[in-house]
Amino acid sequence: MCVFCQIIAGDIPSYKVYEDEKTLAFLDINPVSVGHTLVVAKGHYSNLEEIPFNELTALISSVQKVGRLLKDKLGIDGYNVTENNDPVAGQEISHIHFHVIPRFSGDSLDPWPRRGYELEEAERILKKIIG
Amino acid sequence: MCVFCQIIAGDIPSYKVYEDEKTLAFLDINPVSVGHTLVVAKGHYSNLEEIPFNELTALISSVQKVGRLLKDKLGIDGYNVTENNDPVAGQEISHIHFHVIPRFSGDSLDPWPRRGYELEEAERILKKIIG
Repeated sequence: MCVFCQIIAGDIPSYKVYEDEKTLAFLDINPVSVGHTLVVAKGHYSNLEEIPFNELTALISSVQKVGRLLKDKLGIDGYNVTENNDPVAGQEISHIHFHVIPRFSGDSLDPWPRRGYELEEAERILKKIIG
Repeated sequence: MCVFCQIIAGDIPSYKVYEDEKTLAFLDINPVSVGHTLVVAKGHYSNLEEIPFNELTALISSVQKVGRLLKDKLGIDGYNVTENNDPVAGQEISHIHFHVIPRFSGDSLDPWPRRGYELEEAERILKKIIG
């Protein structure tokens, strides 16, 4: 059984932040910032392509609730929501989860570097995607 | 009118990836990686706390579709989904949007550094959140 399924089953303890019928939220024990919370579907679906739509809506609703809770209770001004979809994207546990990462002014968490598109590169990529 | 509302209205051109009644997806012109797509609600809501639930479910459904499309058409193995909620979290346009960022093996995009909790710090934070 995967580690999140074991946490959901109660076989591994967790710092529970929120729970409802379809989802569970708990503190990440290796947080990017204090209060960093993971929101997981109770069903075992590996990623966004696998999770059924009604489970996904329950999951994003819990993300919304957790974000509001962290803002209210930790007095933060904002947070990042991230879902790392597949190992190449840094997904460590193959069970869909959203990170809610509290942000603090001057916390030195830098956004990923941006690039531009070369001439007609965007058009070429778009054609690949929608063509 | 905000820049995303102008794009939705067609007053500013965009590289359109996907569109339905409630959402629009287009290429970010300063991408983290090639194919980086923004998925926006057509209604103007600043963040996750403001967007009504049925608009949010439409938005995450479009994120799911865009992720699948990028995987299928760009031949990528995964992607990151992120929503920067509020300026402190790096939100540049105050109109809710999700980033879908294609990932490539060896692309040098590093995850944010992790820390641990000190003794009883997690318990203290949890008490703040759910207490």
